[in-house]
Amino acid sequence: MALTGRELRSSVHDDGTLRLMLEDVVMDVMAPDEIVVRVEAAPINPSDLGLLLGPADVASVRTEGTSERPLLVFDIPAPRRASVAARIGVSSAVGNEGAGTVVAAGEDAMDWIGRRVGMVGGGMYADLRKIRTREALALPDGVTVAQGAALTVNPMTALGFVETARAEGHTAIVHTAAASSLGQMLQKICASDGVPLVNIVRSAEQVDLLRGIGAAHVLNSRDPDFRSQLVEAISETGATVAFDAIGGGTLGSDIMRAMERGAVSRMKEYSRYGSNSFKQLYTYGALDLSPMVLDRLAFGFQWSVSGWLLTPFLQKAGAETVARLRKRVFDELTTTFATHYTRTIGLGEALDPQLLRAYERKATGEKYLINPTQD
Amino acid sequence: MALTGRELRSSVHDDGTLRLMLEDVVMDVMAPDEIVVRVEAAPINPSDLGLLLGPADVASVRTEGTSERPLLVFDIPAPRRASVAARIGVSSAVGNEGAGTVVAAGEDAMDWIGRRVGMVGGGMYADLRKIRTREALALPDGVTVAQGAALTVNPMTALGFVETARAEGHTAIVHTAAASSLGQMLQKICASDGVPLVNIVRSAEQVDLLRGIGAAHVLNSRDPDFRSQLVEAISETGATVAFDAIGGGTLGSDIMRAMERGAVSRMKEYSRYGSNSFKQLYTYGALDLSPMVLDRLAFGFQWSVSGWLLTPFLQKAGAETVARLRKRVFDELTTTFATHYTRTIGLGEALDPQLLRAYERKATGEKYLINPTQD
Repeated sequence: MALTGRELRSSVHDDGTLRLMLEDVVMDVMAPDEIVVRVEAAPINPSDLGLLLGPADVASVRTEGTSERPLLVFDIPAPRRASVAARIGVSSAVGNEGAGTVVAAGEDAMDWIGRRVGMVGGGMYADLRKIRTREALALPDGVTVAQGAALTVNPMTALGFVETARAEGHTAIVHTAAASSLGQMLQKICASDGVPLVNIVRSAEQVDLLRGIGAAHVLNSRDPDFRSQLVEAISETGATVAFDAIGGGTLGSDIMRAMERGAVSRMKEYSRYGSNSFKQLYTYGALDLSPMVLDRLAFGFQWSVSGWLLTPFLQKAGAETVARLRKRVFDELTTTFATHYTRTIGLGEALDPQLLRAYERKATGEKYLINPTQD
Repeated sequence: MALTGRELRSSVHDDGTLRLMLEDVVMDVMAPDEIVVRVEAAPINPSDLGLLLGPADVASVRTEGTSERPLLVFDIPAPRRASVAARIGVSSAVGNEGAGTVVAAGEDAMDWIGRRVGMVGGGMYADLRKIRTREALALPDGVTVAQGAALTVNPMTALGFVETARAEGHTAIVHTAAASSLGQMLQKICASDGVPLVNIVRSAEQVDLLRGIGAAHVLNSRDPDFRSQLVEAISETGATVAFDAIGGGTLGSDIMRAMERGAVSRMKEYSRYGSNSFKQLYTYGALDLSPMVLDRLAFGFQWSVSGWLLTPFLQKAGAETVARLRKRVFDELTTTFATHYTRTIGLGEALDPQLLRAYERKATGEKYLINPTQD
């Protein structure tokens, strides 16, 4: 009995277009330790949008194909095409994480049938996902598939930030785009662990949202005196590491400058080389696709700007740390790591141009969940 | 008997000026382990110019004071003033390294009198420099003071680059502004140690200069096809670390992009996160004062851009490594680490506006030495 299902695919073409479509997939051969999961929940995280839509111009969308098998075509503006040159001719399955029920299994995994599991690893925007049992997380009773679909990307990233900061000797943290689901988790972790956190957001509503969950330091980068507020908050907390989801423009540079200003103000003597305080900016997202502009002469010499990505962090952290973090996620799944979804849509609906524009806007507090069984 | 001498001072003022002058200094109290050295040689390195002239507009120079005690006044363009805000009201002694003869000593160091020593630590553009004996390097016979004055900044930095690259697992190096004295040393070290080196320079003359000392990879960043040459040279050598003296603009970003392109071309499968190859850009200078512009989306996620400075490197490397590097500098002082001076000038002459313009131009192959006993 061959199982068949739809799978959402994103592809980049040499005519400068990005295309989204649903492909039929047949799940036939299974390794002894493999299971096939009927996907019932897969969140749309900002990191999913990076693969789904890449640098395409969302407003340029055209609908082709049939209503049953829609095909969306987008233009990629010429200056951004180089960044996806390696994707030309590649059809990518999308969806970092998901959860559902096991509906088929290889010979060594028959007892998994009927179990509900959480998964990570891509290709979750699909009716069916084949995965090795060692890569699936069995969901305890009382954990819904919607909860089980969000065990990794945001919770492990937020925990990973705090682990990284601690391992590298930092005692306080700066976070940008801090009103995101991830940002709210980070705020709760830091509050619980006693790690001072400077939250940077972009609107008064986002300030209120974070204050509402107990944040002590929330700055609005659109305030006219934002830069002086930043120096003050960083001096007060002693933050020397920042995690930045934005990446483009000068915000990262402003943060590093403020860290150096804080450190220099604690020095007794002027040094042309700046402070001895090591300042680290990690960029983990690309909400702004423009280049990062670093006014590095204001940083001194003890600084580093680096990419941060969950998978290499987990590999480097080792099994013991990962198990400890995973346990915490399960223990605090309805508190620290609760994700609130604005709306649940079907897999076909994900290709509805109007819905697509709604979920790609990355509006604060808005979060979409795909449930392929819904259509 | 009190010793007196002149000392070159650079100061920044709240009227937006930078001033250079010679101050009289009296060497009176000496600790038991201190010596006073009559400075006979102090090179003008690019890193000295950073403190000497800061971001001042050299063309704006006015001569004030007397012919015996000249005072040079420069304007600092308004947009650059913030970078030296911490220097306002601070008078800085200049000159990172030098050498000379011991003319006075504390009670425990009397046997040092008459010895020739090399020194590092600032304030070397002076007739006399007081220093602790443990910080002075006795010069062996046959080593001139001009040679002994350049034991640290360029040689230890060039060796430090190779040590850093090795310690962090890189097997080939990219270097910018590679025709400098430092760059020539690095080329000789890498050739001798079998470390592939991609040299980036800015003129055909500089290409010839490096080829003349045996460099295999020399790229002119002004060539129209520089970027494709860069990808080729980086792919060929497998370079994953760069040391950059320029800092401003997009060259560092171009290098990182080329490293990622090289790494991606070796991958079997497309990954939206880019290569697994860790790419490191160290910036150790500021030949271009403009902001650093990073097109980070072309780097993947495994990258870091950091400041690199000799003193923290030496502290981190530890005494054993430092001793090994120092020994190599002495062993190869007339070969790998030979410095060729274009001209030797007096301390007063360093404040001659025409001479100042000549030595601050940082022209390839041009290097000035200050000998305070000359005027």
